[in-house]
Amino acid sequence: MLERLFRPRSAAIVGASTDPCKPGGMPVHYSKLRGYTGLLYPVNPGASEVQGLRAWPSVSAIGEPVDCAVIAVPAAQSIAAMQDVALARVPLAVVFSAGFAELSEEGRVLQEQMLRVAREGGVRVLGPNSMGAFDLASGFVATFSSSFEHHGGSGWPTKGPVSVASQSGAVGVDILVRLRERSIGLAKWVATGNQCDVDLADCIEFLAADADTRVLVVYVEGCRDGGRLAQALAAAAAADKPVLVLKAGTSEAGANAVASHTASLAASDELFGALLARHGAVRMRALNELIDLTAACSRAQRLAAPSIGLVSISGGVAALMADEAAGGGLEIPPMPAHGERRMRELVSFAATRNPIDAGAPAMADMALLARFVEIALEDGGYPALVCFLSHLGYVDRFFDELRSRLVRLRCRFPDRVIALAILAPRERSALLEQDGFLVFDDPARAVACVAALAHVSAARPHADRCLDDVPALAPYSGPPIAMATDEAAARAVLEIIGIPVVSARLVTSAAQAADEAARIGGAVALKVASPDLPHKTESGGVMLGVAAASAAQCFDALIARVRSAHPAANISGVLVSPMVTGGVETFIGVKVDPALGAFVAFGIGGVFVEVYRDLAWRPAPFGRSEALAMIREIRGFPLLDGARGRERADLGALAEALSRLSVFAARHAAELESIDINPFVVHARGALALDALIVPRAPD
Amino acid sequence: MLERLFRPRSAAIVGASTDPCKPGGMPVHYSKLRGYTGLLYPVNPGASEVQGLRAWPSVSAIGEPVDCAVIAVPAAQSIAAMQDVALARVPLAVVFSAGFAELSEEGRVLQEQMLRVAREGGVRVLGPNSMGAFDLASGFVATFSSSFEHHGGSGWPTKGPVSVASQSGAVGVDILVRLRERSIGLAKWVATGNQCDVDLADCIEFLAADADTRVLVVYVEGCRDGGRLAQALAAAAAADKPVLVLKAGTSEAGANAVASHTASLAASDELFGALLARHGAVRMRALNELIDLTAACSRAQRLAAPSIGLVSISGGVAALMADEAAGGGLEIPPMPAHGERRMRELVSFAATRNPIDAGAPAMADMALLARFVEIALEDGGYPALVCFLSHLGYVDRFFDELRSRLVRLRCRFPDRVIALAILAPRERSALLEQDGFLVFDDPARAVACVAALAHVSAARPHADRCLDDVPALAPYSGPPIAMATDEAAARAVLEIIGIPVVSARLVTSAAQAADEAARIGGAVALKVASPDLPHKTESGGVMLGVAAASAAQCFDALIARVRSAHPAANISGVLVSPMVTGGVETFIGVKVDPALGAFVAFGIGGVFVEVYRDLAWRPAPFGRSEALAMIREIRGFPLLDGARGRERADLGALAEALSRLSVFAARHAAELESIDINPFVVHARGALALDALIVPRAPD
Repeated sequence: MLERLFRPRSAAIVGASTDPCKPGGMPVHYSKLRGYTGLLYPVNPGASEVQGLRAWPSVSAIGEPVDCAVIAVPAAQSIAAMQDVALARVPLAVVFSAGFAELSEEGRVLQEQMLRVAREGGVRVLGPNSMGAFDLASGFVATFSSSFEHHGGSGWPTKGPVSVASQSGAVGVDILVRLRERSIGLAKWVATGNQCDVDLADCIEFLAADADTRVLVVYVEGCRDGGRLAQALAAAAAADKPVLVLKAGTSEAGANAVASHTASLAASDELFGALLARHGAVRMRALNELIDLTAACSRAQRLAAPSIGLVSISGGVAALMADEAAGGGLEIPPMPAHGERRMRELVSFAATRNPIDAGAPAMADMALLARFVEIALEDGGYPALVCFLSHLGYVDRFFDELRSRLVRLRCRFPDRVIALAILAPRERSALLEQDGFLVFDDPARAVACVAALAHVSAARPHADRCLDDVPALAPYSGPPIAMATDEAAARAVLEIIGIPVVSARLVTSAAQAADEAARIGGAVALKVASPDLPHKTESGGVMLGVAAASAAQCFDALIARVRSAHPAANISGVLVSPMVTGGVETFIGVKVDPALGAFVAFGIGGVFVEVYRDLAWRPAPFGRSEALAMIREIRGFPLLDGARGRERADLGALAEALSRLSVFAARHAAELESIDINPFVVHARGALALDALIVPRAPD
Repeated sequence: MLERLFRPRSAAIVGASTDPCKPGGMPVHYSKLRGYTGLLYPVNPGASEVQGLRAWPSVSAIGEPVDCAVIAVPAAQSIAAMQDVALARVPLAVVFSAGFAELSEEGRVLQEQMLRVAREGGVRVLGPNSMGAFDLASGFVATFSSSFEHHGGSGWPTKGPVSVASQSGAVGVDILVRLRERSIGLAKWVATGNQCDVDLADCIEFLAADADTRVLVVYVEGCRDGGRLAQALAAAAAADKPVLVLKAGTSEAGANAVASHTASLAASDELFGALLARHGAVRMRALNELIDLTAACSRAQRLAAPSIGLVSISGGVAALMADEAAGGGLEIPPMPAHGERRMRELVSFAATRNPIDAGAPAMADMALLARFVEIALEDGGYPALVCFLSHLGYVDRFFDELRSRLVRLRCRFPDRVIALAILAPRERSALLEQDGFLVFDDPARAVACVAALAHVSAARPHADRCLDDVPALAPYSGPPIAMATDEAAARAVLEIIGIPVVSARLVTSAAQAADEAARIGGAVALKVASPDLPHKTESGGVMLGVAAASAAQCFDALIARVRSAHPAANISGVLVSPMVTGGVETFIGVKVDPALGAFVAFGIGGVFVEVYRDLAWRPAPFGRSEALAMIREIRGFPLLDGARGRERADLGALAEALSRLSVFAARHAAELESIDINPFVVHARGALALDALIVPRAPD
């Protein structure tokens, strides 16, 4: 369907202006300029001709099939325009007009009205409040960006493999200009605006199948349907096209700004990040990092491994680059002895291990400098190499020789990523880019870009493996989830899922409590059971380490305490469990976001979750290997891995529980709001939930 | 003394070359070119004339006073050259020659030999392996950087307020070129190389007093004398000159690279960072951030408060900037209602709270856009404002109007920092910089620079306050620190310092243990006392929660367990203490670095220290307010501040202990290697050390 957006055989511009600088004039002007060969119908009841083309009073008056209509009239006239478009049986409309849901409640109503007209007429809608779309191959430019006017009208990007899909027109144009500044070639561009119908997921899915597109750059603020987005991202991953995503809202201040900017529900940034990561999309934090990585993806191959060679003509910068590589998760494998020897023969005092510092002699001898790079490529075998060349790009007597020697190496090692950190006049940097190098002014930024490229290279294989070993869970046949509001019910659910839970018997009298404690032997835990008191500790409903002898007395005391604090609570009894000692207390949680779906969280229990926010998130479901990856991701992982002389915890049992819970959460996302298993104690052998809370989703 | 380095009345160039492109020829060539008005004596026994100047066979043959000698001969000839310089009573020599301590053991010996000759002759030495120094005001250019050759010899920076002191010549030159690229004006430049005599601290101290210097940019790898560096940094702080520091070695890989690069002892990066922060220096992580902040410091005033206003023509970028501001510790105060109202009158759907999104209309109406900026300045009162202007710098029909309107605001609000994030041709960015704006291409980078500027602005007042309320400790009169190797001795030391310690009695028999436990009443802790077993827990020398009734039996068991595991250990007895329950377990440590001095660490105890590295470091000594700042700095601070329904811990008692320990550590740094107080339990009222370990410094 979006084929008609980028390559319509015929297009009508509703509100076409004779002024090529107005939003209604630009699509006509730009499409003519770019050699669009389809039929272009300006619609303007007040004109007989627009920019040299015959003008039409309405779309329906054209009397020929129209693939795409651009609506560039004020919001108040949009309903009439859409009626006209629907009457003419146009399958797709791009609505530039603003003043809808992004503006006010009246605007929201107007937007719904317009959408209804479109739906009834079988018209798909991009927008409203959309900056449109364009395709450099077809020459159809249905947008009103002023960026093409730059440099007296030659502000067009070159053709290339990158396509941009942005929720925000302004951010989309900003990215467009940055790509042009860096000579990164563009294929297609689309801004989805208010997304009343066509959304980012549609655009990503289309671009995943688009032959001209090899790299997708996406700006996203919110999402109505995580499942659709996941499907689109998976299509891009399957087509082996990297999806690079910029998303605002990591901070509370940023999230508030996003919420006020778009009509979309502001989903949790953490969950959104987990969704993107699962489906192989790579998220960047800043515009310049995004553009760096886009350049790398459009020009470089993938990295076979996350490892890097560093060659420098400054020992200090060698160290700075090593810091950045280590911080970015790259390995810095040492140069093999043979290579070290060869380098030392060149400069006896060179640092040859990796990072490699060729030293001052290489600053004044380009043959020598190139030899160091050559040996690093030959002996080091690094899939990626960053060379710090300081200001050599400005030294006239060195530059040409340096370039020609490096180009020879570039040709000899076509499968390697070679990044140059060099200060140079812009035209010389551009030459080196044309030679096939990634070029940066800042060495840390060069290393960071290689780290991001390693991330891109690993993202798709990882995405493919997430469901490898999902446990086969029998369909859930327990009590209705909507009723599982107290601990006894929650533990019953866990048992059915196959997650081990500490034994607990519900007792309703002091005598029963004493009997059960005696049967258990040793200390017990008493917990009040009440559907009205989900947070038992805060309600005074828990007694730990109760000796068998005092169980009866404690039962009475516990009931009395809870009754006096919560006189209205229904109390079904008291759960008696054996006290569990030892092991590592972890936290397992489920959170269902109405738009994004079900997610599972894992962390070390207690203050680690609350104060340190040391949590890993994954969309549900996932297999055991992915659960293990999740476990290893938290900073506190050493606590499970035998730190401080502890026994190593049973990671298999933990992974099994996470994976099983993820399957259950995915299947029952519609019935759930959240699940907390806190603590889930992991021993050297086995693991055990000590407490659980299920919050069912309230009926709509 | 460094006056002679930058403005000598006369200078000799030993090894002066007739070739102006050789290291020995460059100082002659460059100094002539830059109009140096002092006397220049080329020394070259094989020439009668060098670059148009009379050449001399030796420095001593000149027969006139020489302020500064540049030695540009191979290392093998350096001793003879230095003898000549000493004979001529030259007070300062700059040694370009490499091949000394940075190369090999022989080189180290040669360096010492040369230094001895210099010392005996009263010659101060910059280098060896130094790229020298220069002063744009005097025109004396004692360096061999090829960067001045750029652009056919016009590669000189402009004059300005920034001076550079770098341990590495290559990094120093790289910074120099970046300053020139950004039109940041330079005063003086010096590279210290191997620092056999003159070091960075000398240079910083000199520049702190230098009238031409307002901002110091420093690249440092290591330090032999933290006290001298602290003194120099304090001088810069007192002169109100920001010191911006780049230091490699945050990662292990980076630290190793530094160690192999310089002869200096690689000090702990954490300690170094604490030392810099104490004395008001601001550390940057990457070259481009360093240059951004240098530009800001050289052009902008300080910030009155760490708060920011954000104006955008894109809601998405407004959110991205808010994320960056929040991450950088900046406040984003909401626009007062009056300002919000004024903005809404301009654009009804603008986001007006802060971040401010003027929306699409402002992209095509420069008067409207400028009005938003004006209202943000007038009503918001923000000390710093970042405006995201996307690609407007490229739009010919808008740029001049935009610029003239913004310049008017720049003039109306001279005390505010105004940063523009704008895509524009380089010459237009330069115009905006000349107008007094900070100009960036990336909005996140603009906000990060404002955050760094806020840090600079707060650094000096903070440095001044660190010693405000240092407790008055009586001179230490306890047992010799060298003998305080067991817990009993360590606790005695703490008691004398005035740090509360849980009571403990040394008992030497089971009967005594039983008596003491009975006297205490309740459970006790038993800990073996032995100077040979500093790590009691790991040695099996601790029993906790021992009931009074079983104290005798446990005493025997403990002694037997330790004796069998450590038959050779001297055991002086067992310490009996009451069990302490409740409170928050914290960690207090002292570490003395031989080069940098004594430092105090604070963190939450247990795994928080070991797994999460959640520690704050401060150089000793410091007062109570600084101790409170340190306590608030750790991520786990909420645990002390009443998180999870706990009582708020007694921060006053904790701060008092930290501050007292810091005074003791500073006074006795020479005798100490480390102190661990772990745990130091902080209750709602009061605090108590439960265990302590002192490691005295081994005699040299």
